[in-house]
Amino acid sequence: MELGRVVGTVVSTIKTAGLNSFKLLLVSPFAEDQGPAMEKPPFVAIDLAGAGEGEIVLVTSGSAARATPGSEGAPTDAAIVAVVDTVRLGERTLYAKS
Amino acid sequence: MELGRVVGTVVSTIKTAGLNSFKLLLVSPFAEDQGPAMEKPPFVAIDLAGAGEGEIVLVTSGSAARATPGSEGAPTDAAIVAVVDTVRLGERTLYAKS
Amino acid sequence: MELGRVVGTVVSTIKTAGLNSFKLLLVSPFAEDQGPAMEKPPFVAIDLAGAGEGEIVLVTSGSAARATPGSEGAPTDAAIVAVVDTVRLGERTLYAKS
Amino acid sequence: MELGRVVGTVVSTIKTAGLNSFKLLLVSPFAEDQGPAMEKPPFVAIDLAGAGEGEIVLVTSGSAARATPGSEGAPTDAAIVAVVDTVRLGERTLYAKS
Amino acid sequence: MELGRVVGTVVSTIKTAGLNSFKLLLVSPFAEDQGPAMEKPPFVAIDLAGAGEGEIVLVTSGSAARATPGSEGAPTDAAIVAVVDTVRLGERTLYAKS
Repeated sequence: MELGRVVGTVVSTIKTAGLNSFKLLLVSPFAEDQGPAMEKPPFVAIDLAGAGEGEIVLVTSGSAARATPGSEGAPTDAAIVAVVDTVRLGERTLYAKS
Repeated sequence: MELGRVVGTVVSTIKTAGLNSFKLLLVSPFAEDQGPAMEKPPFVAIDLAGAGEGEIVLVTSGSAARATPGSEGAPTDAAIVAVVDTVRLGERTLYAKS
Repeated sequence: MELGRVVGTVVSTIKTAGLNSFKLLLVSPFAEDQGPAMEKPPFVAIDLAGAGEGEIVLVTSGSAARATPGSEGAPTDAAIVAVVDTVRLGERTLYAKS
Repeated sequence: MELGRVVGTVVSTIKTAGLNSFKLLLVSPFAEDQGPAMEKPPFVAIDLAGAGEGEIVLVTSGSAARATPGSEGAPTDAAIVAVVDTVRLGERTLYAKS
Repeated sequence: MELGRVVGTVVSTIKTAGLNSFKLLLVSPFAEDQGPAMEKPPFVAIDLAGAGEGEIVLVTSGSAARATPGSEGAPTDAAIVAVVDTVRLGERTLYAKS
């Protein structure tokens, strides 16, 4: 799974029925050092954890995004499955939810 | 899922039967700044949302592309599942369908 | 799905039974400008469309490669599912089969 | 599968139920030469092997992460499936667990 | 599928039961020109073809690695499914097993 930051939203009226009940969030890969050159572009995930903008989240990709009771019918390849409290790298705290 | 722009079409007479009923669209990864050097090449997706050329769309990849009633028999790894109205990055509107 | 050019063949005597009935083709990612530095190396796909060397083909990856009646038992992650006639990028014809 | 080193942990209170019983570990791709520029960022995997920080582990990705009796209900795309004892590259021992 | 060269082995005592009966081989992506800078690191695959060190093999990734009678219960995302005899690129022989 991938750590990401919720950075925005995507709105769509015309979509396949299986996406109707989901919030589509724009997620940017989490980098400790948010430098100007983010190499990987943001992507879109359905929200299964009630995530808010700016929060660090855990994103699951591929068929795993449909491996929850709420998302099994959704044609998505990415889902936010957790809101992250802390990320620790050895002794160091990379991120702590304020 | 990935944001992309419909940039063209692919036509094929000789193909496996499961692709017969689908329009094959050429999709370029969406980048806010459409600079000259697009690093990721365009790819091909089946259209499940009636997308038109130039529109920004949401593309789902992998087995998710077959997770809709219309596409379950199609041997595709990419499907356009939504036509995008707006993309917001924080307070900023990255894209709004005109 | 990905556009590719059939550039060669792979022959193997010792292989798992599920691959026995397939032709293994070497496919190079299609680039409009075939410069000297092809960044992505060629890969191997089973042929489900009777493709010939030099032809531009449509390759499906992942579990989709097994989503056809002919390939469902094959342990492959890539299959040629179409021989391409034309690729259009806006008004421009990127490729037309001669 | 990918060799990685367990470098940290991720804690989350708000998450989909399927992740509740798993330890979420931060894994960095294993490189023989741990230079300053690790190109690929760390990712998060559920632990199925009782791995400890600093250990070299084997990580399986995609639907394979759910192909064990313990993880079949978990919406994860990555799982630690082994703690590695030795990695040999030809005659050379790249890694040996101390 | 990907061409690779068997370059080593991985040994693990503590692993999920589904991996017990498999040899874990270290595979390096095959490049015609084995220059010093191999960009993609070696990965680990289960061996379904009796491959030996130094041989060029065909590796299948993702759920395809579990699409053989022998590997269906294994939590792996990569399997060696063939030992390669020859690789031809147009008229040129890129590799021939000696």
